[in-house]
Order: sequence, then C-alpha cells, then structure tokens
Amino acid sequence: MSDSQMHLAAFVTAGPGRPGGWRYPGSVPGWLNQSYYQNIARTLEAGRFDLAFFADILSVPDRFGGSTDTQLRNGALGSLRLDPLHVLATMGAVTDRLGLAATVSTTYAQPYTVARSFATLDHLTGGRAAWNIVTSFQAAEARNFNRDSQFPRELRYERADEFLEVAGKLWDSWDDDALVLDAEEPLFADPRRVHAVDHAGEFFTVRGPLNVPRPPQGYPVLIQAGASAKGKDFAARWSDVIFCSHASLESAQAFYAEIKERAATHGRDPRQIKILPSITPIIGPTTAVARQLHDELFELVPPLGGLSTLAYHLDVDLSTFPLDERLPDVEVPGVEGHYREVREITERDGLTLRQLGKQYGGRVEGGFVGTAAEVADGLEQWFTGKACDGFTVQAPYQPGGFEDFTRQVVPELQRRGLFRTEYTGNTLRDHLGLSRPESGEWTHRVPTARKVLS
Amino acid sequence: MSDSQMHLAAFVTAGPGRPGGWRYPGSVPGWLNQSYYQNIARTLEAGRFDLAFFADILSVPDRFGGSTDTQLRNGALGSLRLDPLHVLATMGAVTDRLGLAATVSTTYAQPYTVARSFATLDHLTGGRAAWNIVTSFQAAEARNFNRDSQFPRELRYERADEFLEVAGKLWDSWDDDALVLDAEEPLFADPRRVHAVDHAGEFFTVRGPLNVPRPPQGYPVLIQAGASAKGKDFAARWSDVIFCSHASLESAQAFYAEIKERAATHGRDPRQIKILPSITPIIGPTTAVARQLHDELFELVPPLGGLSTLAYHLDVDLSTFPLDERLPDVEVPGVEGHYREVREITERDGLTLRQLGKQYGGRVEGGFVGTAAEVADGLEQWFTGKACDGFTVQAPYQPGGFEDFTRQVVPELQRRGLFRTEYTGNTLRDHLGLSRPESGEWTHRVPTARKVLS
Ligand SMILES: Cc1cc2nc3c(=O)[nH]c(=O)nc-3n(C[C@H](O)[C@H](O)[C@H](O)COP(=O)(O)O)c2cc1C
Ligand SMILES: Cc1cc2nc3c(=O)[nH]c(=O)nc-3n(C[C@H](O)[C@H](O)[C@H](O)COP(=O)(O)O)c2cc1C
Repeated sequence: MSDSQMHLAAFVTAGPGRPGGWRYPGSVPGWLNQSYYQNIARTLEAGRFDLAFFADILSVPDRFGGSTDTQLRNGALGSLRLDPLHVLATMGAVTDRLGLAATVSTTYAQPYTVARSFATLDHLTGGRAAWNIVTSFQAAEARNFNRDSQFPRELRYERADEFLEVAGKLWDSWDDDALVLDAEEPLFADPRRVHAVDHAGEFFTVRGPLNVPRPPQGYPVLIQAGASAKGKDFAARWSDVIFCSHASLESAQAFYAEIKERAATHGRDPRQIKILPSITPIIGPTTAVARQLHDELFELVPPLGGLSTLAYHLDVDLSTFPLDERLPDVEVPGVEGHYREVREITERDGLTLRQLGKQYGGRVEGGFVGTAAEVADGLEQWFTGKACDGFTVQAPYQPGGFEDFTRQVVPELQRRGLFRTEYTGNTLRDHLGLSRPESGEWTHRVPTARKVLS
Repeated sequence: MSDSQMHLAAFVTAGPGRPGGWRYPGSVPGWLNQSYYQNIARTLEAGRFDLAFFADILSVPDRFGGSTDTQLRNGALGSLRLDPLHVLATMGAVTDRLGLAATVSTTYAQPYTVARSFATLDHLTGGRAAWNIVTSFQAAEARNFNRDSQFPRELRYERADEFLEVAGKLWDSWDDDALVLDAEEPLFADPRRVHAVDHAGEFFTVRGPLNVPRPPQGYPVLIQAGASAKGKDFAARWSDVIFCSHASLESAQAFYAEIKERAATHGRDPRQIKILPSITPIIGPTTAVARQLHDELFELVPPLGGLSTLAYHLDVDLSTFPLDERLPDVEVPGVEGHYREVREITERDGLTLRQLGKQYGGRVEGGFVGTAAEVADGLEQWFTGKACDGFTVQAPYQPGGFEDFTRQVVPELQRRGLFRTEYTGNTLRDHLGLSRPESGEWTHRVPTARKVLS
C-alpha cells in the first residue's frame, strides 16, 4: 500500500461503548453473542478496513466515588467488557483479510502466555494479529491482581520493556524454517533451528523455546498509545501503530511531528510507524440530518456516565468536585492525552463539571459530523495535512455506526484515491505497508541500557 | 439426556498428537490454520458429540535427557501446541451446539483472567464452554514462568482450590438478572445485583466484580484428570467431568466405582459427575483392514518419540535407563494413571524400554480395533459394565480418525440407542445432563477447612 492512501482501524467495544450509545434505538445490545461480532467483522472487511481494534480494562472502573455503581447504572465504557482475545478469534474465524487487534496488559500477565496467545492468533488467521500494549493505569485493576495499589508508571514501563524483549525472544525462538515435516526421516522440527531463550532479567526468568512456531508476521503488529514521556518513548521504540486522541487538527499535527521525530531518533524509519488518531464520525444524508442524529445521541448521554468514564480515563475521583463548577486544574495520573482534550474543551466552551461529563461522554472526536462527502473532506484535510496516517474509527452506536461509515464514507474515500478498493496483500503488515521483522529484530528495540546487559 | 445414553468427547490436539501420527499419509498437517479446526468442529457437531477437548502444556517437553530435541525431531505430543482457548473460539464460531473444552493451569495464571476468559467463551458460544483444570506437573513449565522448579503437588492443589473459589465468586459476582438494559431509566445493570467479591486468601487477593455477566451455564463445565489422592479429591469436589486413561476394562471399572463413591462422600449426586476414559479406536471396513491400519500406524511410531512423551507424562528422565532392558520400578511424580498403564503392559508383554516407547506411543487406549460394529460392541460393554459414562475419543491420526468415528461408529451407537441422534438442548450442560449451578454453588465445593474461614 502506498503512503498516499490512509489506513483505517475500527475501534470496536466488546460491551457498551460511549456512555448512552446503548440507549439509542438503532443500537443492538448483542455484546454477549458471537454473531454480533461476526457481523461487524464482515462489515469491516467489506469496507476494506485494515483492522478491528479492541480496547480493554481488567476491572469494572470504580474511579468515580470509589464505587462501580455509576459505571454500571449508566452502562458507561468498561461496565461490561468481554475478553477481547476470544472476540478476535471469533471475528477471525469468519473473515480472510481483516486485521485483528486486542489490548493486553504487560502488568498483569506473563510474557510466555501473551507471546503464545498472539503467535497462536497470528497463525490461525494467516498473519492478521495485532497487540495493543498497555501497562494498565487503574488501581481497580491492581486490586483484581493481588495488590492494593498500582506499581508506579516508571516501573510499569520498565517491566513492559523487558516483557517485550522476552516476547520478541520467544517469537524468534523458532527460526522461520524450523518446521520441516519430513515424514520419511522422520524430522518434524529441526532441533538446531529451535532455540531456548534463557532469559534472566529483573522481572522475568524464561527458558523457552515457545511451543508455537514463529508467527507468519514475524511479530504481530505492535500498537501503543502511551501519552507520558515514558509512554511515548516506549511507543517510538516498539510500536508499528500508535493510537491517540485529539480535540483539534493542530494538536494532532503537533503530536504527529513529535512521534515521527522520536522514531527517527531511535534509528527507525518514521514511515514504519503509523499514527491513527481516533475519530467518532456522525454521518447523515444531509448535514442537517447528521446534526440531528448528533443531537439525539448527545441527548442520551447521562452526564454522570460521561463523568465516571472521564474519572477512569484521568484516574481522578471527579465525584469530589462540585458538579456545577468548572473542573479546576488537577494532577492526572491517567491518560494525559484525554486531559489535554478536556482542558481544551472546558476552556473553549466554559463548561461546568456536569456539562463536561455530558460533553466528554458525547464528544465527537475530530468533530466530523455531516454528509459522507463532508466527513471525507475532513479526513482528507487531516491526512494530507500531516496530522495522521489514517484513523481509528469509533461508532457513535454499534453496529450501525460502522455500517454507515463503510457504506458511505469509505466509497467516497475510494473515489478520491485515498483508500484501497481491494486488499493487495494477505497479512495485516501487508495492509499497513509494514515490513516483516527479521528474527532478532527485538535487539534493535530494547532500551540501550538493557542492550548492554544482553 | 437420559443416563442410558453415553457421552462423547473428542480429544483434539492443537499440534501433532500421537508420536508418528503426523507421518501417516492420511493425516493433514494443518495445525496452524483455523480451517483445520473448523472442519474438525463441523465433523464432530455432525456426529452429535458432546464436546471437543484440548489438552495443554506450557512448554515444549524436555523431560527426556533435559532437552527438547527428541520431542521436536519426532513431532511428539507437545512439540508444537497452539493456545487452546483461541482454537476453541475459532471452532465455536462455526458451530451451534458442540461443547468446547480447553485446559488451563491454575499454577501459572490468575483467577480474574481465567474466570473472565471462560465467562467470555461461554457467552460468545451460548453456553458451550468447559475448563479442564490442571495444576501442571513439568519443571519445563515452571522455567517459563520465573521459577527453577515446580511448586510441590500439595501446594499446587491448595492453590487450585483457592483459585476455583475465587473463580466461583467472580462468576457469581453478577446475579443472573443483573443486566437490565432499561434505556429509558437509564439502567444498564442494577448495581445492587453486581457484587464485589472482596476475596483475601493465602494465594489471591481479588476485589471484583468481574466485568462479564454470569455465564449462561452458571459456571463453565469443569473437567479434571487428577490421579493422585489429592488430585482425585479435588476432582470429586469440583468436577462435572473426569478424564482418565486405562489399559483395561477392570481398571476402568475400579476407578469408576471409586470416584462415584468419593463424590457421594462429598455430598454430591454421583450422577452429576461424568467419567469419560480416553480411547483411541482404529476402525476399518473389515477386522483385517482395521488391524492392517493399526499395524501401519504402529510402524510409524518412532520409539524415542514415544519414550520422550512417556518421560514427560511420568515426569521421569527415561534417557538414563538402558534402552534394551525392562524399565525398573521408578518413583513417578507425574501422571500415576499413565504409570499404572505402563506397568501393566510392560509386565504383560515383557517389553524392553525401547519397545515400551513404541508401545506407549502407538498404544490403542481401550484396545478398540475392528469394524464399526466391533468397536461399538466394546464401547457398549464398557458403558453398560459401569466402567464409564462415555468416552474421550482420540484420533490415531487427525482429522481422518474423527471422520471415521463419526461416520461409522456413531451411527452404530445410535442404532443401538446408546447415543443421541439429535441434540436436545443448547448448552454443554444440557448435553451432559448436568444441572446449572445456582449462584453460590462454589461454597459447597471448597474444602471444609476453607469453608470455616469464609
Ligand atoms: C486512544 C487510546 C486508547 C487506549 N486504550 C487503552 C486500553 O484499552 N486499555 C488501557 O489500559 N489503556 C488504554 N489507553 C491508555 C494508554 O495505554 C496509556 O496508558 C495512557 O495513555 C497513559 O499514558 P502513559 O501510560 O504513558 O502514562 C489508551 C489511550 C488512548 C489515547
Ligand atoms: C487423560 C488425561 C489428560 C490430561 N491432560 C493434561 C493436560 O492437558 N495438561 C496437563 O498439564 N496435565 C494433564 N493431565 C495431568 C493431570 O491433570 C494430572 O496433573 C495428572 O494426572 C497427575 O495427577 P495429580 O495432579 O493428581 O498428581 C492429564 C491427565 C490425564 C489422565
């Protein structure tokens, strides 16, 4: 795929998504059934999407007042969330080309388990797996995994670096040609081409080899959304794809330039890192109808559902601030990118906390509301304006939002030559124009400090 | 389903199965592709099987000479093995009724992760998930998870008990009617019907609730194959289904009587525990052709492939014994059931270690070799002779072995009224005739010592 075409990821939620989205009459509450995800997968593949992506969290968020009640009552993001890896396998089973990305935390899992999981998915689907690497940032998650509080961010990223190093070693523990299958000899796999990894580090001791051959893509596509300095550095070293969230074209452009430069600093080809900001397009046959749909959806957002989601994203207990005043400046241990957004809209629109909750829950990332042509205009402007390499498309309500986008906006982008009309390759790396990592690639990604050790 | 009909599980391997099976011209080396598993799933569902089952191990076995070489070279069991949970999701995606069982270890995972995984699978597939609970018994597995050696068995089962207790609490953390979906109110889930679990034990501290509603089956079907006293006790308390392996009708009968009695001791209805010994039927149009097929398959078993598999099953380094002498009595830290089998055949047939390797690799569990009618005769004898409640069918080579069995033996069993001709329910519990656990059922399964604590 040439760099003159954009990439599209779909941000699918394995549970209710935007606060209030589930209340919309057009939404289908099918999150518990495989057919729901299979239908979305077929829609996205028909729309030639690069990939479907699933976020994750290892708890029901409780950051609003220290209780899960507000989240559950409002069906806010994370109140119900299936294990995304199994949802992916289900979607992969009924598609041939669609890439499949799941979020897995390096803080509450072991590298052998995770490396094997993604190697398995990559094989089963013929090279379509991707891993969104997170370090988790909610105390509620720590409390489901034997701890009272989170590890500090610094430590989480150190662990993540070593986690990726071990995963890389395990994926490389079978040479690409290790599986021989000579029935005559017999020689199933050549023992000289399967290697123990003998990793002994600060966080992990892993002997290997993996019991799964090297994945078709070498490594699954690696995705990250770190927002802190530590996080952006980690992403620049390891990521093939970066997710982000921006309230304006300008902030997207600034982020884009920064990340591409950071990648170059780490000796990587900046074109080999794809930046896909999330957008929530709302589409109608006319501009007025799209606005009407937007207003109806906005009306359904319970302010407290939006606030409890924001509390979890910022990792700040917003129940302690007066609802009818503006949110003061706060320390944000959570997602700084979301805080940047929130400050931008709070100040621009002079919102009280209650209004902010509704606004945050009902926000249209990127601000794309209009006809398919108008939305395509906006996407074109961002793409050609070096704000991104494509987009992560959220649906204002599921699954209809994805159907509208693929049936209306995708053809418009295709007419303009901005998006593929057919898949030209088979693997997700093919779709994204990413090269396949050679065995040993991980050595170029670990921080210099560790490289000396190994 | 009435107790007068047997249950059938298929023991599918997500990699090469019997040593040498992959060398047979009729076998398909498709273990890395989803279509391979989907075809097997469709075959088994057409044959009205209760479930497909996947064993697992978290390493390439290295118990023969402390190296993975022999296992890899011979393509022996475990040399390559995909993560069974994703394989299940893939099979579930193309079937409607077939039960889906995966092995997951309680020693190298966390209860929140595993409870969520099976709850997800159970929802996605409409109540068809099952968990084969193992505590793992290979040092090679410990070495992939930050340890030099295994935890002692006693400790592994203590951890398993607490693991199941936490999993039960998490599955019950949403009442069956907690998900309300009242868009008007709005009331997505009723916070009064979703509970923190606040578990604080010896091995785990887990706050909960789970972020997935109660599984359709209440709990997934629980399977166990413990062979030690500790293991059998654990199985009698927790299991809905018990797997085992026997060299003769008599040993199967003795085991069956013992387990049913043990269950009664624990206050459980013995009919609510299904015992399914594994068999490896070899079927032909005539007895002579079946025997010929058996001999050809046997010929393909590399003695060292069988021995390295046996070394791993017994957890004894068999490379230290002379190949041309009989295996002396040894301490078996591994699967005692397999050792019982091996002693039986070593003594009966006077085998050297090398011969034992070939015999073990090529053994026909249950000894069922013949026409479909002859095999059905054997199964009927075991079933009516109170040796089992049905069988776990292994294929001498995949996928052909499953096709032969479902096309030939299943109709024969159906004609005799010994097996269903149609599924009468939707969930795996329906197929197995197991009742759906009420919320709180876990309290009846934890050991008495712990019950006092909680
Ligand atoms: C678009 C986007 C999606 C994210 N998805 C997840 C997710 O699914 N799970 C998660 O734990 N964190 C998620 N995060 C959080 C990031 O992984 C990261 O932890 C966060 O941005 C804080 O940055 P830092 O880790 O560098 O402090 C997401 C962030 C963004 C911007
Ligand atoms: C038919 C059968 C299948 C088994 N499958 C597995 C498996 O997939 N993974 C595993 O780690 N152990 C497996 N085991 C081992 C048992 O879970 C158990 O650990 C073993 O029988 C030793 O018993 P004990 O744990 O009571 O000592 C299996 C055992 C039998 C008899």
